[in-house]
Amino acid sequence: MNITRTEIVAYLKKLQDDICRQLENADGIGKFKEDKWERPGGGGGRSRVIQGALIEKGGVNFSAVEGNLPEKISQALNLPASQFFATGVSIVLHPVSPMVPIIHMNVRYFETVNKENPEQTTWWFGGGIDLTPHYVVKEDSQFFHQSLKAACDQHDADYYPKFKKWADDYFYIKHRKETRGIGGIFYDRLSEQYGFTKEQRFDFMQSVGNSFCPIYLHLAEKNRHLPFGDQEKNWQFIRRGRYVEFNLVWDRGTKFGLDTDGRTESILMSMPPVANWVYNHQVEEGSREAETLSLLKKGVDWV
Amino acid sequence: MNITRTEIVAYLKKLQDDICRQLENADGIGKFKEDKWERPGGGGGRSRVIQGALIEKGGVNFSAVEGNLPEKISQALNLPASQFFATGVSIVLHPVSPMVPIIHMNVRYFETVNKENPEQTTWWFGGGIDLTPHYVVKEDSQFFHQSLKAACDQHDADYYPKFKKWADDYFYIKHRKETRGIGGIFYDRLSEQYGFTKEQRFDFMQSVGNSFCPIYLHLAEKNRHLPFGDQEKNWQFIRRGRYVEFNLVWDRGTKFGLDTDGRTESILMSMPPVANWVYNHQVEEGSREAETLSLLKKGVDWV
Repeated sequence: MNITRTEIVAYLKKLQDDICRQLENADGIGKFKEDKWERPGGGGGRSRVIQGALIEKGGVNFSAVEGNLPEKISQALNLPASQFFATGVSIVLHPVSPMVPIIHMNVRYFETVNKENPEQTTWWFGGGIDLTPHYVVKEDSQFFHQSLKAACDQHDADYYPKFKKWADDYFYIKHRKETRGIGGIFYDRLSEQYGFTKEQRFDFMQSVGNSFCPIYLHLAEKNRHLPFGDQEKNWQFIRRGRYVEFNLVWDRGTKFGLDTDGRTESILMSMPPVANWVYNHQVEEGSREAETLSLLKKGVDWV
Repeated sequence: MNITRTEIVAYLKKLQDDICRQLENADGIGKFKEDKWERPGGGGGRSRVIQGALIEKGGVNFSAVEGNLPEKISQALNLPASQFFATGVSIVLHPVSPMVPIIHMNVRYFETVNKENPEQTTWWFGGGIDLTPHYVVKEDSQFFHQSLKAACDQHDADYYPKFKKWADDYFYIKHRKETRGIGGIFYDRLSEQYGFTKEQRFDFMQSVGNSFCPIYLHLAEKNRHLPFGDQEKNWQFIRRGRYVEFNLVWDRGTKFGLDTDGRTESILMSMPPVANWVYNHQVEEGSREAETLSLLKKGVDWV
């Protein structure tokens, strides 16, 4: 059975719709505002942004773009001169409460067609979900990783350990020697390898996409009514500063978008509404902030 | 006459001391706090940070570091395997009032010694001053550029036009199609070329360094008592977000520092205390914010 672009796009649009509806329900106040945009070179997207009672600033974007693959990128990807097609859903949610984590999800599909030899096509799936708690809570971290493991295990027993490590390595703020959060899963270039069919890879994309709402809504409901004060808000703003540092300095997706004249407002919807920088900020020994920092490490086994 | 490292370092330390003293006087409340640090590979610095009534967050850093030039950098600079020595003063000031501009200055000296052939040395001066007003004020922009032109003209009539253009090109937020601010001057790799001696290049560094206080204190005094409200503060926070974007995405100095395991807290002292991101922020037609945006362009002749 051959999976087509059309099927993948249909799934992703529906995923965006489902997630937006469930997030609006959970928020209770905020409503998504949509911007439809077109890419001059081909294709376009639907950027949706919410500001509400649960989510201070959040974006759920769908895009499906196509055109000539910039030479810089075909070289980096080790591909011949090609036409490309790329579609995906990207989410970043910055909650109001510092007790609720920041979450990020991306699921994407990428395809190229060799210009000289149109029969020669390449395709792969990529994506992931990762969590950036302002305060790391062990029970929540376990729930998060166990949920991702369950989604992965339906497809292959090697997926979770492999993609968990990939996330640890990817979401790393090298200049801080800190991970961005507690990781999650990250994968790329999943193609017709190791006996997997395109249908199986697409099924996996759907398992990841469909796991987003149950995971996030559980974590949000569990924590959104916890009390917090100035200390927690200040810490949230500092943690958001680190989020900005990762996205603007190290994130290859952001770099790719800004380098290839992507739609800046859609790429930078990941930026928090407010972030702080305090010179040489130090946490108090034994504090919850210190405990969180001590857990922002690669290789923690949460399962 | 041969200018030595010692002389350059002595000038830069005195420059840091002078600027810190004058900024404390102007601030009236804030006092600089100093961190002395050592670089594992050789050398170190004095990072000084102020929080006060005029300056919400400001850093005036001196450093003099040395060691093996990382291969990545010797290749990028087209140099053989070398020892390097680098010294400079870097300043970024984020004022409390949105009516007072953000200012940045850097003056630096760089030297390499070929490991195979220690007689083969290379040296150059680099640096610049640029201004990022939250609201562009024509009179202030003229004063700023005229002051820089006067400092340049003492040395060479070509300096100002050349270095002004260089600043326009350098301080450019490509993904926003905006300049960071109204530019200023930027120069690099000034060596013993075109008939200039090392002494003359060093003299120029001193003219730039010495122009900082008269320029900034004039602009600060002129504007610090102007009234402002929420609208101006919100705009300041958005403009600071753009400042973060430039520094983390495009600034080669920041990238160099983070790539070479520089002292993160000293490199990122340029970050504002608070920054905001608003999805797809639009300014009102005919507003002062719109006027400012219309002036964030390359090639404006302020003189």
